[in-house]
Amino acid sequence: MSTIITQTSLDNGLTVVHQEMPWLSSVSFTLLLAYGAAHDPKGYEGATSVLHDWLFRGANGLSSKEISNSLDSLGTRRGGGTGKEVSTFSGSCLVSSFDESLKLFALSLSQANLADDEFNSAKLLAQQELESLQDSPSQLLFRQLSKEYFASSHSNSSYGSAEGFSNLNAKYLKNLAKKLVSPQGAILAVAGGISNEKVIATVNKYFAAWQGQKVPTNTLKLHKPTQKHINQDSSQVHIALAYPAITPKQDGWYENALAISVLSGGMGARLFSEVREKRGLVYSVSAFSRVLKTHGYTMAYAGTTPDKADKTISVLTDELRNISKGVNQNELERARIGLLSQLVMQGESTGSKASNLANDYYLIGRNRSPQEIKESLNNISLEQLNEFLKTCNPEFRILSLGPKEIKKVEL
Amino acid sequence: MSTIITQTSLDNGLTVVHQEMPWLSSVSFTLLLAYGAAHDPKGYEGATSVLHDWLFRGANGLSSKEISNSLDSLGTRRGGGTGKEVSTFSGSCLVSSFDESLKLFALSLSQANLADDEFNSAKLLAQQELESLQDSPSQLLFRQLSKEYFASSHSNSSYGSAEGFSNLNAKYLKNLAKKLVSPQGAILAVAGGISNEKVIATVNKYFAAWQGQKVPTNTLKLHKPTQKHINQDSSQVHIALAYPAITPKQDGWYENALAISVLSGGMGARLFSEVREKRGLVYSVSAFSRVLKTHGYTMAYAGTTPDKADKTISVLTDELRNISKGVNQNELERARIGLLSQLVMQGESTGSKASNLANDYYLIGRNRSPQEIKESLNNISLEQLNEFLKTCNPEFRILSLGPKEIKKVEL
Repeated sequence: MSTIITQTSLDNGLTVVHQEMPWLSSVSFTLLLAYGAAHDPKGYEGATSVLHDWLFRGANGLSSKEISNSLDSLGTRRGGGTGKEVSTFSGSCLVSSFDESLKLFALSLSQANLADDEFNSAKLLAQQELESLQDSPSQLLFRQLSKEYFASSHSNSSYGSAEGFSNLNAKYLKNLAKKLVSPQGAILAVAGGISNEKVIATVNKYFAAWQGQKVPTNTLKLHKPTQKHINQDSSQVHIALAYPAITPKQDGWYENALAISVLSGGMGARLFSEVREKRGLVYSVSAFSRVLKTHGYTMAYAGTTPDKADKTISVLTDELRNISKGVNQNELERARIGLLSQLVMQGESTGSKASNLANDYYLIGRNRSPQEIKESLNNISLEQLNEFLKTCNPEFRILSLGPKEIKKVEL
Repeated sequence: MSTIITQTSLDNGLTVVHQEMPWLSSVSFTLLLAYGAAHDPKGYEGATSVLHDWLFRGANGLSSKEISNSLDSLGTRRGGGTGKEVSTFSGSCLVSSFDESLKLFALSLSQANLADDEFNSAKLLAQQELESLQDSPSQLLFRQLSKEYFASSHSNSSYGSAEGFSNLNAKYLKNLAKKLVSPQGAILAVAGGISNEKVIATVNKYFAAWQGQKVPTNTLKLHKPTQKHINQDSSQVHIALAYPAITPKQDGWYENALAISVLSGGMGARLFSEVREKRGLVYSVSAFSRVLKTHGYTMAYAGTTPDKADKTISVLTDELRNISKGVNQNELERARIGLLSQLVMQGESTGSKASNLANDYYLIGRNRSPQEIKESLNNISLEQLNEFLKTCNPEFRILSLGPKEIKKVEL
């Protein structure tokens, strides 16, 4: 079942994207704001991450505890997080709780208390989360890889830095919040058993008075291809890599999605079958896309034992490179049905629907219907896909973490 | 929207549980078999876990690669895993792929090749997964806590043991499979956009010929309350504990669910607010229920810094104990709406619906309708809940992991 996606713009710059799923009793919403970790000023890494927590610690006279209790009383689950370019604040609840839930979100974003004692708690937790990375080698690795990949502030992650937290104080962050927390460029996506009329009326009631500045964007820059190693006394060797791909606005977006699916989409996909099943090299291997507004990239991960690390990095990079030699008709069909099935299943969940609506609009300035995506995928011939793949020449940024250096591969 | 749940028994002992969700184009299914890690023979820990992987590595003349490729061609996502008492094999796909997907699952379970070379790959991966636990302190901790909690073979986890893997060979596991992989006591739960008639016809077509023995059950035994510490050079201190609670068949099941929700259900819940928000002691804290057929227990986890570990264990155990002094009306209402909202949202997803249908039938021998659960939760008064809570006296089994011993608390 598929229904219409509508976009409505408020005068303050907020865009409301909505899709009704009239057979459901629940509704999910994602509020996407146009700032993220890349907006952390130099020396204040982690600022936007602390802000994400701080905003919901009391608003308009309500205390932090009162906001939490009110959301609990509505049965509303809150989620979201700080990305590189955007911050998301999401909720899921019964349709009957939508009005009150949205009110609490609007208050928190437009009239947050931003009290000093709550700043301290939020910062303390963010610091602890950064420290806890030491016990999670694969997450630590991805945070570090980001620094080897991006030469601009896009290298920042939501974990922040020890230096950033030590410099950060409530006054500084309150000033930063004035510049960043804004309806301009923001998107509120809503999906579930609620009509467009009701959504727009509710959003107007609570969000229309919200005002803010235009959020600046930072130019994205990359480092050159590289391979580095982090010595750590871990039991396994963790390998992560990244290389440039394309954005949803560029030609070849669907071809790229099919290629990633051939590599890592299903149980018979190349990485799983060549690296894991056939050679037993790793207990975990995958490749996936990451997309920013002006840049798309592919990341891959493999976890293995120290004695198999050299072989793993060779096979992994070979497989990623070999895709440029083309795929066969069976691989294309498996990848296509995999993506089409996913499309249907994600379309049945309010949570992933709301999140996809917000991201799609953020990335390409409009929403693609499931029908449009389906047709685009179905229209790609094997010849067309393989022509595209010939142009794919991955330029790796590789980072490994483990008890000893691993083999250097061609970059 | 709520539709009828039907149960159908096959002559071979397999029970089919089905709920139609006619507004959906996808379908999910969970096949629950009546054996789990607790059935690993002594000295062969990890056997059922290797078996879970091995079963899907080829059947009825099809190779492992052919099975994987076929499932990919259908757009079917496979999941599941090895629990303590049960093993699950689950899938999600478009309704149009249901027939062929179910056929592949039936072949894999009733006519698996169980080839020697595939055994070696499956065992190698399971061994690597066990080794990788060393880099994941919190998961390692829960595996070890299981050994401190259960005195019977229920202490086994799906990770197995190094000794178990070294003893295990293909011939031994093939014999074990004959005793364990059986339709007797097995449950196939199906939820999604497919009619009961179609489901039963498909199941009969592919599963009716499957035969097997009755799977024995092991008597469950617990160790006495205890507190132990694992010295490991981690950056954080990880604390886990477990204590007996009740099963879904016992009176007080809903009261217990409400109590866990008061402790850990939402953002204003006691653990989150007392341990995390108010005192900033931990970056992560939670409590949750685990249910076996004849035993229910509550587990809790907290991750903190070494200097805050003593305070954290005190506050955590105090909060868990204090619940016996009762909750207030507001807490009850927040917990109730939280559980009711969850019930609706889980009921809208085919995956969690199928999994819940299988578990419910396994645990209590029937399926509770959402309406029944809703009424049961709504009928509980504050007085009734607090009377129940008076009888709750947690007897802790506590395990911590970190660079140094932590404070001993009252057990």
